[in-house]
Amino acid sequence: MSFDRLMEKIIEMGNPTVVGLDPKLEYVPEFIQKGAFAENGADLRGAAHAIWRFNKAIIDEICDIVPAIKPQSAYYEMYGYHGIKALYKTISYAKKKGMFVIVDGKRNDIGATMEAYSAAYLGSTPVKGAEFEGFGADALTVNGYLGTDGITPLTDLCKKNDKGIFVLVKTSNKSSGELQDRALDDGKTIYETMGEMCEKWGEDSIGKYGYSAVGAVVGATYPEQLEEMRKKLPHTFFLVPGYGAQGGGAEGVAKGFDERGLGAIVNSSRAIMCAYQKEGCPPEEFAEAAKRECIRMRADITKFVTALKE
Amino acid sequence: MSFDRLMEKIIEMGNPTVVGLDPKLEYVPEFIQKGAFAENGADLRGAAHAIWRFNKAIIDEICDIVPAIKPQSAYYEMYGYHGIKALYKTISYAKKKGMFVIVDGKRNDIGATMEAYSAAYLGSTPVKGAEFEGFGADALTVNGYLGTDGITPLTDLCKKNDKGIFVLVKTSNKSSGELQDRALDDGKTIYETMGEMCEKWGEDSIGKYGYSAVGAVVGATYPEQLEEMRKKLPHTFFLVPGYGAQGGGAEGVAKGFDERGLGAIVNSSRAIMCAYQKEGCPPEEFAEAAKRECIRMRADITKFVTALKE
Repeated sequence: MSFDRLMEKIIEMGNPTVVGLDPKLEYVPEFIQKGAFAENGADLRGAAHAIWRFNKAIIDEICDIVPAIKPQSAYYEMYGYHGIKALYKTISYAKKKGMFVIVDGKRNDIGATMEAYSAAYLGSTPVKGAEFEGFGADALTVNGYLGTDGITPLTDLCKKNDKGIFVLVKTSNKSSGELQDRALDDGKTIYETMGEMCEKWGEDSIGKYGYSAVGAVVGATYPEQLEEMRKKLPHTFFLVPGYGAQGGGAEGVAKGFDERGLGAIVNSSRAIMCAYQKEGCPPEEFAEAAKRECIRMRADITKFVTALKE
Repeated sequence: MSFDRLMEKIIEMGNPTVVGLDPKLEYVPEFIQKGAFAENGADLRGAAHAIWRFNKAIIDEICDIVPAIKPQSAYYEMYGYHGIKALYKTISYAKKKGMFVIVDGKRNDIGATMEAYSAAYLGSTPVKGAEFEGFGADALTVNGYLGTDGITPLTDLCKKNDKGIFVLVKTSNKSSGELQDRALDDGKTIYETMGEMCEKWGEDSIGKYGYSAVGAVVGATYPEQLEEMRKKLPHTFFLVPGYGAQGGGAEGVAKGFDERGLGAIVNSSRAIMCAYQKEGCPPEEFAEAAKRECIRMRADITKFVTALKE
């Protein structure tokens, strides 16, 4: 009932990073695509198989040094239900390998419908008296535009099943400020207000490191806001996207951590998945190249984030 | 490139309503569940088959009198990838029967990721030179918290493929006001500001009825805001949830329409799917009962929405 499980892995591995598995087909080496198409057809099913093989190989390489993966749902949904099956297999496999799995789905809806999303990702669905996990993730990203009704079904399940959510506070994209940076009539920005709601939503799920089960997404591309939010939201664990390919640097992301070196996890996706292209190594080494990039990223960030210990 | 296609169906059928297909397993009559479990197992796969059979029978009954369906993605995701296959089959079948399909997914993300969602729901995904539709819907609900970056990939595809989106403006749930009703420093509310963004995002996709490809979700449970938004957003077509089970009445939802009786479509989900339970008719008649409820709803709403003609 908090992000303790994730923080324990982060401390154990000395690595506050998460690998975003957003496998566009063009990132998958040709030899994997060929094999998958030959066996399954050159269509959505074949593409989904290619993605699954790509993910599996990367998970095998990184599971001992990286605490978590963050599959982005959109990159599976674009391959239809075949893609969703690849997402399910990726989640199951990463969990089997001991990784913490954050599904990046940014889900949001009214209360009754959020119960269905909660069941899908953080809980289970009853069928004829038995319970079945739809996806069985450890955490889900969500959008809080609908207010408390849309969050309560998730926090209830987080407490029951030891899971977590990340609410969008300040996103990493260029136009995030159009709405999120606007000031309300009390002088506070919308992102600040959303951040305060996260503190409130999490107040009864605070774990041993002082963080609740309600985390926040705060982009690496806005280090000032990251620093501001870290100070104002002492119980809210941060998922920090935007490092690397999107332009956020290690010195900036370090502002998302507390004085113990805790309180945040930094995501990188493309730089890791496509490390073999950047390195120019043989495509057969894509997974090893991904691991090398993970090690480089860990070194880069831990230069600035000092402790990682209580 | 607008909601013209949908409006033509609405005018032709004299029916500005959409059936929400949010099939929780408990809504599906026992005899369908039994058959589906016997053939596929009493698990997520069996449940997904039951849901698909339930949907198909309802679509068969209503496709001649109702212009559109709105499957809510959460209720399929809770059955894992089997559920998503049922969603895909439901969309394909409804389209084959001539219906307009709105996927209620409230998707949102940064630009590059929204391209993937756009491809999934409103476009197609390339695999080895050929294009494949992931879901092939006509419209998608989205959340605009991330600003313009997260909307442009969708509007580009809407124009290219004659599709539409509905952006959450004022949602139907109780806590929608926590954020959406807050006033910004210019005195405008957040929902009003989001509504103005919809007008801007849609300005180059206005169709023959004066409405663009960028619609808005405005809940029936807040008729005053519905009336206000109708006046302030002359080019924004409304998807109005919250009628019936959630408490919105026909006189209230009528405020979402313009003086021609156009500009909105009203959703009902549970009241239609569970009409057989309310009626107390034999469960075998669930689809006919759903149709009777659709007819009742149409009569109820068209009492107040006068024209439905240009």
